This record gives sequence, structure tokens and C-alpha cells, in this order.
Amino acid sequence: MPAIDFKVIKQDGTTAARLGSLTTPHGTIATPIFMPVGTQATVKAMTPEELREVGAQIILANTYHLYIRPGHELVGRLGGLHEFMHWPGPILTDSGGFQVFSLGELRKITEDGVRFQSHLDGSYHFISPENAMAIQEALGGDIIMCFDECPPYPSEYAYVEKSLGLTTRWARRCKESHARTDQALFGIVQGGMHRELRERSAAELMEIGFDGYALGGLSVGEEKELMYEVMGYCAPVLPVDQPRYVMGIGAPEDLIEGIHAGFDMFDCVMPTRNARNGMLFTSFGRVNIKGAAYAEDRSPLDPECGCYVCKNYSRAYLRHLYRSGEILASRLNTWHNLHYYLNLMTQAREAIGAGRFGEFRKEFYAKRFSL
Amino acid sequence: MPAIDFKVIKQDGTTAARLGSLTTPHGTIATPIFMPVGTQATVKAMTPEELREVGAQIILANTYHLYIRPGHELVGRLGGLHEFMHWPGPILTDSGGFQVFSLGELRKITEDGVRFQSHLDGSYHFISPENAMAIQEALGGDIIMCFDECPPYPSEYAYVEKSLGLTTRWARRCKESHARTDQALFGIVQGGMHRELRERSAAELMEIGFDGYALGGLSVGEEKELMYEVMGYCAPVLPVDQPRYVMGIGAPEDLIEGIHAGFDMFDCVMPTRNARNGMLFTSFGRVNIKGAAYAEDRSPLDPECGCYVCKNYSRAYLRHLYRSGEILASRLNTWHNLHYYLNLMTQAREAIGAGRFGEFRKEFYAKRFSL
Ligand SMILES: [Zn+2]
Ligand SMILES: [Zn+2]
Repeated sequence: MPAIDFKVIKQDGTTAARLGSLTTPHGTIATPIFMPVGTQATVKAMTPEELREVGAQIILANTYHLYIRPGHELVGRLGGLHEFMHWPGPILTDSGGFQVFSLGELRKITEDGVRFQSHLDGSYHFISPENAMAIQEALGGDIIMCFDECPPYPSEYAYVEKSLGLTTRWARRCKESHARTDQALFGIVQGGMHRELRERSAAELMEIGFDGYALGGLSVGEEKELMYEVMGYCAPVLPVDQPRYVMGIGAPEDLIEGIHAGFDMFDCVMPTRNARNGMLFTSFGRVNIKGAAYAEDRSPLDPECGCYVCKNYSRAYLRHLYRSGEILASRLNTWHNLHYYLNLMTQAREAIGAGRFGEFRKEFYAKRFSL
Repeated sequence: MPAIDFKVIKQDGTTAARLGSLTTPHGTIATPIFMPVGTQATVKAMTPEELREVGAQIILANTYHLYIRPGHELVGRLGGLHEFMHWPGPILTDSGGFQVFSLGELRKITEDGVRFQSHLDGSYHFISPENAMAIQEALGGDIIMCFDECPPYPSEYAYVEKSLGLTTRWARRCKESHARTDQALFGIVQGGMHRELRERSAAELMEIGFDGYALGGLSVGEEKELMYEVMGYCAPVLPVDQPRYVMGIGAPEDLIEGIHAGFDMFDCVMPTRNARNGMLFTSFGRVNIKGAAYAEDRSPLDPECGCYVCKNYSRAYLRHLYRSGEILASRLNTWHNLHYYLNLMTQAREAIGAGRFGEFRKEFYAKRFSL
């Protein structure tokens, strides 16, 4: 029996958007969904209870960071990530590939795997598809990801093609070595911005067979139009009855476009990282809370938002906290931004349920540009 | 009618400890009480709701910091501190004197007041007793403090005596200029570590007449025994039917000794600042959560503690968060430390209510040194 069960509950009438239900060993998720990123076994500045309150259903943890500190074996001995971080809901772990490839000079790729140096202490490490599985098994996420190569953008066609072959061979080794039956394993489609390579990657992965499929290698510096184009031609070649996930995106409009293309899952550090930098998402566009215009502004950050922050604090106070470098600034800003993202997902699901996602998408843009 | 009403509910049988009730415009406080410090209109890392949950009844805000940023007039226009920071309970503001005198080279004292430079941008400012009152009136605390001079320790006897005279004259000017009838004004007893000067200061302030009396100039580098001695001879010369407050102390044992001497109110940055440095207070003594001994420790920080942190997280996770520099480390550590301090006050009040504070004090020490 597979570790997860995915059902498409409703297909939108005029777009590829779909409403789904994804059951995991730690609970059922309504899709489309955004997954807050908990890099070091904590979604920065939030408690698990607060994540629930803002509507988080599943969170993502970064294998690379946890492998480096405190170590996957330690987390495993302490009962796995769920117990370690006091988050009883579903968890997805990435494979560490993206972080390792981002190390640049500090890593070397061979057919076997990747040798790299820790960003913390320069110590040497080696990750292969097999130990990427072992590490994620110790961490104990509900959904784990294949170890892939994410080529930089732009790259030569020949390099992307060769890299795709490696990603497929690694994916096969991941599937063969993955042993925990209570974890789902997703394949990662690569192929850069080339349609025929993306389609080839998807076909090769589907032949191996995974519990779900993700697009990797997006949001790596390409134009938004190109990202949307890739999502647009990739979704139709992926199985209709399995979850589809776009990794590492994005801005609110990217999520809307991803849902529009037929994707179900998203993750990104944008809402949490921007929050700590004072960049806030609202129903009418982005707000830089540092702005002098907010110095005496007694109104809530987003008058249409029902979150704890917008119900209890003024823009003037949020500005004061940010300028004063207070921890509460990071807390309240993160709280609101995550609520914004997750509420956007709730609204998207309601729109698909009502068969009006196309209209919802138009309203979303109209409101944001009305400022 | 005075802005506050204080009643001694019960006097402990064998010690000077007393159980009291202090009614302010924003609520009634059970004493003895510890006041968490919210320097910049936020108790670092905590929301007001969490402060309530850990047992905070009244918080302290720093006039100097709020005067510098965002400015007391701005806070006043935004409805005062209570509304600004979303804390509906009682607030005490200090006079700014202690911070101004800590600026060292950046300030100059005259009979009129103190000229000083901002620690943020070097701009010049002048605070007199009269505008210390105006600033605190704009901030809107329930209890405000006289503008005093806090002499450094050690100081020459002659200097302390001269300074005490200035503090008395300033206290008179504070009382004369203070206009808001919904704020209580406390006098601050100075006099260094000299019994006759402390008694003279107290007598001069009592002749002017204030709503409560504080000891300033303690925890400035003197030995603990000396601090306890000063508290011991000052309490008996202060009015029995008015609140007594020791400013800027201290460690848990300092609070126990202050209560033992007959004081009702305390404030200190120690629980919050230490928390951010990974120094945690427990029923059996202090814990440095960085310690390698906690790397795989699944037990709660303090098995006797009933706080959110001790109920849900392991020492191993707290250590991981701290080493990873996570905001959640500061949050959980602050939460527990404040709970520890406020729970200690609750236990002290219960012990006084049961007429057994002397025994409670012995048990407190016996447990801490049993490690
Ligand atoms: Zn909000
Ligand atoms: Zn605790």
C-alpha cells in the first residue's frame, strides 16, 4: 500500500486548476497548498501552534541543513522530525540536492554522488542517492524527494541534457534504495527551460514510477514568463491522479499561475524571509513597513486580513518594531505573511470548488494592481 | 482620589514579607510581583497574550528608549503605550534617569536637569524633572517614576550626599509638575550604600509625599550582601501602607530576599536577556542550554515546570535552536524564564498567604543547591 493517497475532488471548469485531497501518515491535506519552509526544524519565528492558526497543513524541512546540524542520526534517535520539532502534522523533506548544488566551488559531482564542504565548518561530506534516502528516512518526513542535479540557469543545452540523464539514473537508485513504506517518494523533473528535455525527464521518471512528481530547477533566475511557460507544458504530461509539486516558488502570483497550470503543492522561503526584511504581502499589493508614510498610521496592515496581527496592531507599531530591530517584528511580519499565503490557498481552493478559478485569478490581479 | 489603591492583605508571621493588592487604572495586581521589562514597547520576543499566559500582571517600559524612538509625542498621539503595544494591563514607566546616567561621557548634569546625546544618532537632548513628567504623561503608564540621579558605585560619600540632595529637589519639582490624576507617581530613594543617607532620602521623599516608594541605585556592581543589607534597613522606614519597589533587581534569590525584607515590586532584564543568551532558570538552578550534555537529552528543560516550553519541547531541541541562532530559541527561552520568575512570585504569594514565607525561602535555597 502506498504511503500516501491522493484524490482529485474537483477539476475547475475552464482552467487546469484542481481541488485535491492528499492523505499522509500524519494527516490529510487539502490541495492546492503552500508549504512553509522550516529550514532548521523550525519555521523561522513561528511555533507549531501558530502555524496551525495561520492555516499551515504541511511544512517543508531542509535535509542539507539538518544533515549538517544537528545531524539526521541525532534527529532519528530523538524520534524523528515530528517529535523533535513538536509538529504532529505532515512534513516533506527536500533531498538536499538544491542546497548542495548552491555551494558552488565547495562541491564536486560524479556519477556516484556529490562531494562537498559544509558551509558551517568546511568539513568534507559525500551525498549519494542512497544516503540521501537514508538521511531522509532518519528525518522521518511523510514525503521525501529524490536526489537530483539542479543545473544552473542559464546552462548549455548539452549540459542540461547530460544532467537530466544523471538525474534519471539517480532517481532510479533512490527508488531502489528507499526502504520505509510509511514515506512517499517524489521524483523531480529537470530539463531546464527546454520543453523536449522536460518532457523526456517526466517520461523517464514516470517509467520508474513515483508517488508524486515535482518540477525542480525553476525560480533560478529565469523570467517569470518562462517559468509560467514551463509549468504550462509540464503539468499536462504528469499523471492526473498523482500530486504535482513545483519546488521553490514563489511570489503570490507564481502560486496562482502554478495552480492555474494544474499544480497542487508549492514551497518557498519568500513569505518568511521577506517578513524578516519588512516586506509584507497584502490583498492590495506589497508593503515595505519601514516606510515613513506608516509612522503615524493607526490602521491595520491589511484591512481585509483577519489575522492576529491585523486584528491587534497598527502599521505605526509594526514600523516601530521593525526599525527597533525587535524580535516581535519578525514574529508579527512572518505571522501575517504566512497567513496571507495560506489564506490565498484557501481562497483558491474555494474558487476551484465553485468552478470559478478563472474569475478568481482575474480578481486577484485586479485587486493587487488597484493600489 | 489617588490613581492607585494599595492594600496589605496579609503580613507574614515571622518575616517582613507581605501579600498585597495594588489597584491601578488598568487592573489590579497581586503583590509581591515581578515586572517584565519592555524596553522599546515590547517585552523582547513575547506577545502580550503570551505575557498574560506566563503570569505577567504589569510590565515596565523604558522612558529613555521610547523618548529616543519612536518619540513620546508620537506614542501619545497614537493613544498611549497601552494601545500602541496592545497591552491592556498596568504599565510602569521608569523616568529615563538610569539610562541617561549610564550614557557616561555623553551627558552633563546641572541643577536644571541633564543634557545628553542620543546613543542612536548623537543628537542633543535635555531632560529636566518637568519634562520627565511630560514625557511619561504622554506615554501614559499607570505608575510613573520621579527623575532622579543615580550615582555610580562606588562613589565618594560627599558625592552621594550631594546627589541625594539633588534627587530630593528634583522629586519635589516632579511632584509639582505632574498633572495627570490617572497616573501614580513614585519617589526614588537614593543614598548609595550608606544607611544614614538612605534614611535621609526616604524621610525627605516621604515629607513631599508620593503614591509609592522605590529603591534606586542598587544592582550597580555592589556585593549581594550589601544589596540585601540596604533592602533590609530601607524597608522599615518606608510607609507600611504604600507599595515598595526595588528597581532593577534581579536574580531569583534577589527577589526572594527583597520580598523577605518587605518589598512588593521588582523589575529586571535578567530573565529576558539571559534567555536570549541561552541561560535558563530552573527549580534546581541555572542551565546553560548550549551545553553538549543536552545534545541528546529528551527530557524537558525543567521537569517541575508546567510552562508551554517544558510541556512540549526537549532540551535537545532547545539546544539545537540556540546553536542554530533561531528566533524560536529566543522565544522559547524567554517564555520559560519569565514563567519561572512569575511562577516564583505566585509561590511566594501563596507562602505569605499561608504564613510560611520563611519556610518557603529555605526550601527555595535547598532545592537550588541540591543539584
Ligand atoms: Zn494580517
Ligand atoms: Zn518551563
